Amino acid sequence: MDEREAARRLGNLHFEDIGHTRIDHDRASRQGFPEVVFGAGKTRRQIVEVFERLAARSPNVLVTRTDADTFGEVRNVCNEAEWHESARMIRVWRDREAHGAGVVVVVTAGTSDIPVAEEAALTAEALGSRVERVWDAGVAGIHRIVAERERLRRARVVVVAAGMEGALPSVVGGLVAVPVVAVPTSVGYGASFGGVAALLGMLNSCSSNVSVVNIDNGFGAGFVAGLISRTHEVSGEELNR
Amino acid sequence: MDEREAARRLGNLHFEDIGHTRIDHDRASRQGFPEVVFGAGKTRRQIVEVFERLAARSPNVLVTRTDADTFGEVRNVCNEAEWHESARMIRVWRDREAHGAGVVVVVTAGTSDIPVAEEAALTAEALGSRVERVWDAGVAGIHRIVAERERLRRARVVVVAAGMEGALPSVVGGLVAVPVVAVPTSVGYGASFGGVAALLGMLNSCSSNVSVVNIDNGFGAGFVAGLISRTHEVSGEELNR
Amino acid sequence: MDEREAARRLGNLHFEDIGHTRIDHDRASRQGFPEVVFGAGKTRRQIVEVFERLAARSPNVLVTRTDADTFGEVRNVCNEAEWHESARMIRVWRDREAHGAGVVVVVTAGTSDIPVAEEAALTAEALGSRVERVWDAGVAGIHRIVAERERLRRARVVVVAAGMEGALPSVVGGLVAVPVVAVPTSVGYGASFGGVAALLGMLNSCSSNVSVVNIDNGFGAGFVAGLISRTHEVSGEELNR
Amino acid sequence: MDEREAARRLGNLHFEDIGHTRIDHDRASRQGFPEVVFGAGKTRRQIVEVFERLAARSPNVLVTRTDADTFGEVRNVCNEAEWHESARMIRVWRDREAHGAGVVVVVTAGTSDIPVAEEAALTAEALGSRVERVWDAGVAGIHRIVAERERLRRARVVVVAAGMEGALPSVVGGLVAVPVVAVPTSVGYGASFGGVAALLGMLNSCSSNVSVVNIDNGFGAGFVAGLISRTHEVSGEELNR
Amino acid sequence: MDEREAARRLGNLHFEDIGHTRIDHDRASRQGFPEVVFGAGKTRRQIVEVFERLAARSPNVLVTRTDADTFGEVRNVCNEAEWHESARMIRVWRDREAHGAGVVVVVTAGTSDIPVAEEAALTAEALGSRVERVWDAGVAGIHRIVAERERLRRARVVVVAAGMEGALPSVVGGLVAVPVVAVPTSVGYGASFGGVAALLGMLNSCSSNVSVVNIDNGFGAGFVAGLISRTHEVSGEELNR
Amino acid sequence: MDEREAARRLGNLHFEDIGHTRIDHDRASRQGFPEVVFGAGKTRRQIVEVFERLAARSPNVLVTRTDADTFGEVRNVCNEAEWHESARMIRVWRDREAHGAGVVVVVTAGTSDIPVAEEAALTAEALGSRVERVWDAGVAGIHRIVAERERLRRARVVVVAAGMEGALPSVVGGLVAVPVVAVPTSVGYGASFGGVAALLGMLNSCSSNVSVVNIDNGFGAGFVAGLISRTHEVSGEELNR
Amino acid sequence: MDEREAARRLGNLHFEDIGHTRIDHDRASRQGFPEVVFGAGKTRRQIVEVFERLAARSPNVLVTRTDADTFGEVRNVCNEAEWHESARMIRVWRDREAHGAGVVVVVTAGTSDIPVAEEAALTAEALGSRVERVWDAGVAGIHRIVAERERLRRARVVVVAAGMEGALPSVVGGLVAVPVVAVPTSVGYGASFGGVAALLGMLNSCSSNVSVVNIDNGFGAGFVAGLISRTHEVSGEELNR
Amino acid sequence: MDEREAARRLGNLHFEDIGHTRIDHDRASRQGFPEVVFGAGKTRRQIVEVFERLAARSPNVLVTRTDADTFGEVRNVCNEAEWHESARMIRVWRDREAHGAGVVVVVTAGTSDIPVAEEAALTAEALGSRVERVWDAGVAGIHRIVAERERLRRARVVVVAAGMEGALPSVVGGLVAVPVVAVPTSVGYGASFGGVAALLGMLNSCSSNVSVVNIDNGFGAGFVAGLISRTHEVSGEELNR
Repeated sequence: MDEREAARRLGNLHFEDIGHTRIDHDRASRQGFPEVVFGAGKTRRQIVEVFERLAARSPNVLVTRTDADTFGEVRNVCNEAEWHESARMIRVWRDREAHGAGVVVVVTAGTSDIPVAEEAALTAEALGSRVERVWDAGVAGIHRIVAERERLRRARVVVVAAGMEGALPSVVGGLVAVPVVAVPTSVGYGASFGGVAALLGMLNSCSSNVSVVNIDNGFGAGFVAGLISRTHEVSGEELNR
Repeated sequence: MDEREAARRLGNLHFEDIGHTRIDHDRASRQGFPEVVFGAGKTRRQIVEVFERLAARSPNVLVTRTDADTFGEVRNVCNEAEWHESARMIRVWRDREAHGAGVVVVVTAGTSDIPVAEEAALTAEALGSRVERVWDAGVAGIHRIVAERERLRRARVVVVAAGMEGALPSVVGGLVAVPVVAVPTSVGYGASFGGVAALLGMLNSCSSNVSVVNIDNGFGAGFVAGLISRTHEVSGEELNR
Repeated sequence: MDEREAARRLGNLHFEDIGHTRIDHDRASRQGFPEVVFGAGKTRRQIVEVFERLAARSPNVLVTRTDADTFGEVRNVCNEAEWHESARMIRVWRDREAHGAGVVVVVTAGTSDIPVAEEAALTAEALGSRVERVWDAGVAGIHRIVAERERLRRARVVVVAAGMEGALPSVVGGLVAVPVVAVPTSVGYGASFGGVAALLGMLNSCSSNVSVVNIDNGFGAGFVAGLISRTHEVSGEELNR
Repeated sequence: MDEREAARRLGNLHFEDIGHTRIDHDRASRQGFPEVVFGAGKTRRQIVEVFERLAARSPNVLVTRTDADTFGEVRNVCNEAEWHESARMIRVWRDREAHGAGVVVVVTAGTSDIPVAEEAALTAEALGSRVERVWDAGVAGIHRIVAERERLRRARVVVVAAGMEGALPSVVGGLVAVPVVAVPTSVGYGASFGGVAALLGMLNSCSSNVSVVNIDNGFGAGFVAGLISRTHEVSGEELNR
Repeated sequence: MDEREAARRLGNLHFEDIGHTRIDHDRASRQGFPEVVFGAGKTRRQIVEVFERLAARSPNVLVTRTDADTFGEVRNVCNEAEWHESARMIRVWRDREAHGAGVVVVVTAGTSDIPVAEEAALTAEALGSRVERVWDAGVAGIHRIVAERERLRRARVVVVAAGMEGALPSVVGGLVAVPVVAVPTSVGYGASFGGVAALLGMLNSCSSNVSVVNIDNGFGAGFVAGLISRTHEVSGEELNR
Repeated sequence: MDEREAARRLGNLHFEDIGHTRIDHDRASRQGFPEVVFGAGKTRRQIVEVFERLAARSPNVLVTRTDADTFGEVRNVCNEAEWHESARMIRVWRDREAHGAGVVVVVTAGTSDIPVAEEAALTAEALGSRVERVWDAGVAGIHRIVAERERLRRARVVVVAAGMEGALPSVVGGLVAVPVVAVPTSVGYGASFGGVAALLGMLNSCSSNVSVVNIDNGFGAGFVAGLISRTHEVSGEELNR
Repeated sequence: MDEREAARRLGNLHFEDIGHTRIDHDRASRQGFPEVVFGAGKTRRQIVEVFERLAARSPNVLVTRTDADTFGEVRNVCNEAEWHESARMIRVWRDREAHGAGVVVVVTAGTSDIPVAEEAALTAEALGSRVERVWDAGVAGIHRIVAERERLRRARVVVVAAGMEGALPSVVGGLVAVPVVAVPTSVGYGASFGGVAALLGMLNSCSSNVSVVNIDNGFGAGFVAGLISRTHEVSGEELNR
Repeated sequence: MDEREAARRLGNLHFEDIGHTRIDHDRASRQGFPEVVFGAGKTRRQIVEVFERLAARSPNVLVTRTDADTFGEVRNVCNEAEWHESARMIRVWRDREAHGAGVVVVVTAGTSDIPVAEEAALTAEALGSRVERVWDAGVAGIHRIVAERERLRRARVVVVAAGMEGALPSVVGGLVAVPVVAVPTSVGYGASFGGVAALLGMLNSCSSNVSVVNIDNGFGAGFVAGLISRTHEVSGEELNR
């Protein structure tokens, strides 16, 4: 690896430093998506400053784990921003062209898992996926998910959000031949330990096609699913340009 | 509560003290079963001494968590003793009369869970239950358990042994209207943490008819199931005499 | 398993999809009880919508982990609904016929465990059990539970709610010959870890007739106890029809 | 959902019951791969019995977590079986046709992670992926992974195996625009807690394209990667037929 | 053990059942102290009802983990009650006779540990101990505890309250030849895990004379210390009458 | 604190440095007992070297957590040494004068807890206590401990060793008015987590007179009990000279 | 060690006892810094009392984990006090002379880690270090930290604050030849467990020059870094006078 | 950051790829030390291959966590290699020039901690530090460490190895004005959890100058200490060249 090569390798890596944040505008090309603003732990002003710069360059922008008041300020600088209450997410969705073949099916075990699943669905849509939603199909009434086999059959990838024992991804995993992205939710009480029981259940899934993201990380699940779906039509080399 | 009453209450509680162990011969009448010898942590000689006293009074005796060599010595003092290799259990099963209505169905999620399930089945049989076994019906191929719905329909109680994510009890719980006794097994690796993942999955089951025993505690699951099944035909008062 | 058989097996499994929830009206026949509404994590409107549909079909309905304001709205659509403050439960109890032989005895270790125990008692009653309550009989004053031996003797099943070290189920388990359903409570502080100490104590009970439900899961304990008690007079096959 | 529909939905779900195991021959069509034999916890005879039936139908078969002696017996019934010592895996790889576009790149952080990574690589190959291996490119010498950017750029999906702090998937995730499947290894000591530190690191990755499988679960990582890569050229509907 | 004997053994065990609570008036004679009211998890009305009955019979009464408003109501029924803000404790201390030889020395590692230590001191005093307090003598300035060696030398028992790493009991244990009762406090942050770090430190103390009570359990520490100190002058038999 | 005072305070603190170990000969006067050799993690030669020096000065010496081979070498240098197989302890017990009033009663819940309890008993004896042993009196047969109330009544302090749920100290604590030193044992399986369940049970005991030592720390329990018992007849000041 | 020597060793150890706190004025000379006031768990009045005494003697004083209202009162007694909102810290910085050679570089992985990093930076400055700040240079965009290699090259020691997976210290550790002090932050959610994931990642760092302080302990990280930097120009003997 | 700059930044980063390992020969210049071979998890042949290449370029080489048989093979290729049994370490120490001012003092709490401490001492020596060893100075006999104050006073940095409660670093931290590197050891039993108790104790140290490395990571502690000590005489810029 000589100097020239090293230069080439790092040459297209830029960022904009605005003090509290180093904005990674290249990420859109590197990962096919603008840097999402993770809202938790940031001040409202920091969020707005970063958002504004991102929205000036990228058609689609997401702010996760935020609140309605922040949305109010964001709306002031970008009137295309939408507020999604249950997912606690701000989304600018200007580029709605579909990039993926097949469908991303997003499933929840219960009604209380919907906010996390919605975060996943909104994210995958922003990545260019067609998304279908199946709510409240948990394993205590196994016929509820079996009834969706046709829809699952069309999926290029399935996202499953479940709390409590987190068993649904294993069942879904056995019904499809595509990757299942499991997202444990903090729904539950007592020995659910804020989602740990569901997380462990998913990590130990007896279905081999299941991989897992962090507790309540609907965004991550939607992002991975979007990449799996979208990259359906392009080669890896193009994606990683 | 005067003195006479207090006396009556404790009057039928005896035990035999042989130094290292206080044998509770009344337990057979109190709980409908002789005190089982928990083999782990006892010397071979202690096990044989206790066994001998129990077998002299009770038709059915169990020794759990023991080994073939101990069985050899036990066989010397009681030639009706049987050795069950996979369950690592010694059983004397002289009273084979059925005490329960309905059937105890014992199910495993995988092949590796059989030893724990067999311990449960052998125990329930010794309590007078009719037992049916269903092996390897885990949720990754959901049709494997659905195929057993007729058998499950005949159950008075179902024991489900599962490791890894421990999801099967939730599915079975949704298919029957009787109690499900779930026993997590230590089958798994990594984040299964020796059965903890399965245990948590079962404790957080979204099926309301599931209760749980300790990891690998096939004996306990079989014992509870036997009590549920057996007491089917008698009143509580009779049972607790 | 041919197609006809598979059809028969799943044929009686229906549900009503109202968007956020798939209501499982068959569960009443499958499990002998309408689907209970687990209130936590649902919006008030979701709870009322589901409740209304269930109350239109089932004589008995339960809403757990809810609050007085939700009760207010539920009362508007069903004036037979009762509010149980300490258990934080809404109950419609129109069918009060007893379905079980024997008695469900519900015991607490301390005064602070009463809310969880009350949830169990209310649930078992709704399932058709006769329930007797014994409050504050913890092991630090062992005579308090010994004084109840006569009552325990009448039990078909015992529910024991205990926090802190969770020792009471082991003692009760040794006094009766019927199943004990142990429910750990989050009562305690420091190394009780929100009920984990009690949970572990119960899972490791040296009494073989103890099985366990999740921390603070009074509903689950009452449900399992109701099933054990009720199914006393009917065969498994009838129950699982 | 009428009976006919229900039948259709479950009609193509068969299995072969050989007592200890219910072999799921349809899984090959459902998931594009024969049921893999998870060797841990099974007796040698059970493994061979299952293997023989699978190898009679499927061109490619895997046995994971097994040993050389078992391989000896497997070789007796199928002389095409290969033994992979470091991965502790038996593989029959008769169908070597490539099914995926792009490349699966498998990366390790250290030398000690190679066995887990090799398990992933062998699995992905058996699924029809082209695999490239990059060993010992951990973050303590960041130039080691940067030097592989060209190779990473060609990837359709990247598998990263890392123990200790498990930081490499985050770095790789930032360098590519495709999914990263992270597999924590139990390499480490002390507060690595047998891979838990790496697992947590990966679950909390600040790179949004990372999903995770169980500790040391090279097989699962390879399986998911194979599905992502392979399904590159076909629609979800075809895959889930 | 005949009936007469059994009766004698349980004959002096009474309690008063007031519905939510079974008050154990004999405990004063059995344990040398009235049953303390553990305030957490009880309603204000329950506390006052129990308090009133206890205060009618016992000279000294304690209510722990309560608040100023409850004190207001307690004061209405017993104007001898004192409120101790930092310990959050109500105390009636009418019998101030000293029952112990030697002194109970109560030590804290830091200023923030004082509330827990004060609870211990107030309890031991109510048991009849002479108490001396040493605040803020943690190990980061080892001379602060060394400076108290004379005082420690007079102790019959030492109570040490410490949070964070909980190291002080080990140091104190090495300076005295009497029992040390260690009480971990929840003082700390991050990896102190609410007192777990201090608890583990104390359980693993390299000083052999240290025993431990629950996190923040100042009451328990004071109670044990009081028993050790008080029983100084009487035989065990007298104490256990 | 002037220099003279500081000198006086540290002046009587000596030790002998033999390279790998700093032997604390003053500890006998400071704590009423020679420094015990904790055998685990030391080489056989280190143990013998320390032992020899201690035995030359102190009448009573203990070596804990050691093995029969080490005993062989210790016996070579001191033929008064005894080997206690179940406790895995070497003891030199030359000074057998009783130093305490009252009795130390050592109780176990089960047969498997005897080794730990025996370690406690041997230690308390070496400290000058009279010891009485009660084996196998666990809570599943509550009459077994109730039968010992007379003996417990004579106790100056009670040591209780229990594994599994660790419930016995709470029951014993309610039966006596003296301190109870609880020692959890690693007896159990599954969710006993090597004694953690018992440890938590004891820390959360609802009996206020219970304090706890480390898992399997029979030595520590016996040491604390010996100090409580022995110091019965002397003032704290004398003890701490 | 004779008396004179012992006296000399402890002779310069003084403290001022103001009841709730023993103020260690010598610590300034012993550790080169006044005793910092750890604000959490102290009353406002206690903080002010201690602060006032410290500020009378030491040029530089820090109060950590406090709030703006406390600052108000502190400002009343010392108008040189500054309030640092994000770090929640009060600082009196009268002696601004630089004591160290080289620079302390403080780095954060994300924007949300700034408060903890700022606490470290403010502390190191008060110890006499020159500090440079680098914010938001996490590993998901590896070029952001690579871009700072020149600045890192000037560092005598680097402090790295990171939450989530805590991977940045490993990367930085590989880029420099000086000590890295890693401080995990509680930034994250789900399986970050309040900073535990980051803590474990740092403890298991594959870079050998990393040591770790408690979660969110910016103060400790800055203190250690200050000591490493400052002692650059003086011998250990001088430092430890 | 233009290309030229990027090139310069990465231009001096090379490694040698030998298949299973990427050897980082630049690390000697980057971190002042050759890449150490972490022996655990590597085959003997891998270790020897890497060792040989390192020893050909660097005067000092370390192999950690290895065994005597591996040493035998290493000795075959480099007869200057030394075997350190207690630390389980191979060392080539050809460059013995001192690089640091002041002394690295390495302290243990007990005899069983010596192997870990020895690993630290051997490492620091190889980095050019003068090392002094103090064994068995734990806090149960506080005079043992106080007696070493003179030696501690000469230290530029102190390494403290301790198991069990891990309290010694806090005490040492209060006695010196230099950094303390704490290394928890797995010495202990029961609730020491293999060193976790000691680790938590050290992370929560009330002495502000303590930072921590992984359990049993003597090498890491020695490495950090060596860097702190060595860089004593040079500027950061020189160090990071």
